[in-house]
Amino acid sequence: MPASSSKHPNADVRMRGFTQRTTVEDALAWVDSAVADFGALDSEDVPLPDAAGRVTARDIRSTVNVPGFARAMMDGLAVIADDTSGANSYNALPLSLLGSCFPSQPFAGDVSHGTAVQIMTGAPMPDGADAVLPIENAQLDGSRVIVLGEVSPGKHVGQMGEDVRVGDIVLRAGRTLRAQDIGLLSSLGFDRVSVVRRPLVRVLITGNELLPMGTPPHGFRITDANGPMLAALIARDGGEPIVAAIIPDDREAIRAALDESADIVLVSGGSSVGKEDYVPALLAEHGELAVHGIAMRPSSPTGMGRLNGKLVFLLPGNPVSCLCAYDFFAGRAIRALGGRFPDWPYARVGARLARKLVSVVGRVDYARVHLNNGIAEPLAISGASVLSSVTRADGFVLVPGDSEGFAEGAKVEVFLY
Amino acid sequence: MPASSSKHPNADVRMRGFTQRTTVEDALAWVDSAVADFGALDSEDVPLPDAAGRVTARDIRSTVNVPGFARAMMDGLAVIADDTSGANSYNALPLSLLGSCFPSQPFAGDVSHGTAVQIMTGAPMPDGADAVLPIENAQLDGSRVIVLGEVSPGKHVGQMGEDVRVGDIVLRAGRTLRAQDIGLLSSLGFDRVSVVRRPLVRVLITGNELLPMGTPPHGFRITDANGPMLAALIARDGGEPIVAAIIPDDREAIRAALDESADIVLVSGGSSVGKEDYVPALLAEHGELAVHGIAMRPSSPTGMGRLNGKLVFLLPGNPVSCLCAYDFFAGRAIRALGGRFPDWPYARVGARLARKLVSVVGRVDYARVHLNNGIAEPLAISGASVLSSVTRADGFVLVPGDSEGFAEGAKVEVFLY
Repeated sequence: MPASSSKHPNADVRMRGFTQRTTVEDALAWVDSAVADFGALDSEDVPLPDAAGRVTARDIRSTVNVPGFARAMMDGLAVIADDTSGANSYNALPLSLLGSCFPSQPFAGDVSHGTAVQIMTGAPMPDGADAVLPIENAQLDGSRVIVLGEVSPGKHVGQMGEDVRVGDIVLRAGRTLRAQDIGLLSSLGFDRVSVVRRPLVRVLITGNELLPMGTPPHGFRITDANGPMLAALIARDGGEPIVAAIIPDDREAIRAALDESADIVLVSGGSSVGKEDYVPALLAEHGELAVHGIAMRPSSPTGMGRLNGKLVFLLPGNPVSCLCAYDFFAGRAIRALGGRFPDWPYARVGARLARKLVSVVGRVDYARVHLNNGIAEPLAISGASVLSSVTRADGFVLVPGDSEGFAEGAKVEVFLY
Repeated sequence: MPASSSKHPNADVRMRGFTQRTTVEDALAWVDSAVADFGALDSEDVPLPDAAGRVTARDIRSTVNVPGFARAMMDGLAVIADDTSGANSYNALPLSLLGSCFPSQPFAGDVSHGTAVQIMTGAPMPDGADAVLPIENAQLDGSRVIVLGEVSPGKHVGQMGEDVRVGDIVLRAGRTLRAQDIGLLSSLGFDRVSVVRRPLVRVLITGNELLPMGTPPHGFRITDANGPMLAALIARDGGEPIVAAIIPDDREAIRAALDESADIVLVSGGSSVGKEDYVPALLAEHGELAVHGIAMRPSSPTGMGRLNGKLVFLLPGNPVSCLCAYDFFAGRAIRALGGRFPDWPYARVGARLARKLVSVVGRVDYARVHLNNGIAEPLAISGASVLSSVTRADGFVLVPGDSEGFAEGAKVEVFLY
């Protein structure tokens, strides 16, 4: 039987690996420079209730003073400080009580010498008063108040603009908005905020063997994991994912999909050096294939480049490799382009290895571990394809390129998923 | 002038503080027991693309095997292992090459003794073959392949069900779904997942002095910060916020709002012991006011209880106190009720204090700090009302109830916002 029958048109596929692999370090440097070349995304105004987690596009200045008026900073009596001079428990001084002052019900009259107004925290200071006497230093007695201590002018009074002045920058550009930032902006009268547009990230899933989400795997076909996984990762990193239908392993179909509008394109599958791996060639031919093949495990068949102004990442079809390549490179670009801190969004904890972790010098390893009471157990993995290894894992340990691995009991840093 | 003129109906307001304060520890214990009494929320099915960050309502079992068929775990040749017995570079053994096998294009024929099929990672093993000979151990030569090494039966073959078997639990109940979990579920054929319903959290903002978001503060009126801030916090913690219009300081209006459906009600403002503080009395009268007044700063005028099966948290109107009381108590209840880890979602880092932090024994302090190169600088705060103190802060330090504070240079743990 001939080696290349008409039934097996791909028998002459190149099965060797990459002739040369880029280091992780160099690939990361390319990502950073490509993002810098890309330039800043434009901004958009969003309603405050939708703004948590978004990144401010410019410095935000207050148009009002906070407080907008002098106000009491504690419960007590609004007085003229001078009237309390020399008061103590042996020298109680009486004042006339004029009324009370609430935040919701300011006192309309003036405080003049010899008078006081009961005041609640946050209420506007009545005209004439210049200090708040804490309630502990006074006794109420019908229409009189007995002053038992001194206050100095301005004491317990929040002055107009003391917290924020008109024109003050209250939040800088590039700030990822937290709940309290939203609250502050609301208190200043804003109901929208200018934020960096989310990078539009198009996800192309290629592979004739793939079935779409919702179709159970059957026969020799498997159901796509990467589309839904990448969409969740992109959203986590502040991008706006668009996941198209699965694209067949067809050069023209892939080329047409690459041409659609996006800031970043992630292509899952077809990223290696086989005959059906069209994407690297398409990129090299019509754009720039800057990196192809990286000295790491998994995810060695990862590529990146540019096409018509878009950043393009070629991710292995294998789900674990796809996740790892996303984490290392594509996620970094998405975060950086959206104005976020580019490094991993994973917390780190120290742990000791339950058993040795072997690697090879010149290659970065991304080893999934289970974490239990400060002990990191590398997960036994028969192949990178085992997505359940990353769902069982609590995080991962990196073995750097200049290391042969770590001994049992070695102290390592675990990045928590 | 009389102390209580008709213009000042509230001049006899109680201005003393709480007669007794609950410890933070006891208040937290109440939260935990109230959540336990509340029982589990029901579940809902959501589409996978919306499921990231949601919590699984039950164990999820696979209905398929992964792999669904024996497949190659590396690129090479599908062979009968026995045929390679004794092969090495001095004893090269020839096999006939029948064709090739891709994931997207399985080989239809059988491998019999003396034959081999070129195979790519992930492709189904052809019938008859029981091992994959790595391509490094073979030479292709037209219609022949020269075997230069041995493989044992099963080598580099992923067996059916090796990763996941029909009936295996792939994700446990109570799991907060990550991107890779979504990918795994998709690969198993799911397109929906049963998750814990989000707790419905109604936010009641009270205060006659308050203007709604979007209306700049003017005169003696201030614009609400707490509604938008609490909505963002609730969403962060997995709750579904409903923020109603601002409610006037009116007993009946507040009572009606408390009666609306919810799992948890947060009331901002009116939580203290003043005459306009209706909510504690309403709760005591119609439900349970379990805690009122807590030994902490800020947020001492915090309350909690139950009303018609709902958990009710009374938060101070002051935005910083409101945030702090939310963080300590309400957020914990929301996370726990939604099936999440109840503790703070803040990362912790060690730091040294730039200057001393004074507290009082018997009170827990929540001190906002600015963090710079491992040095935590307590923010000078003239009053708790200064919301910009939490927007300027990187996080906070807790001073426990049994401490008088920390000295300059002391090592403290900073919770990062």
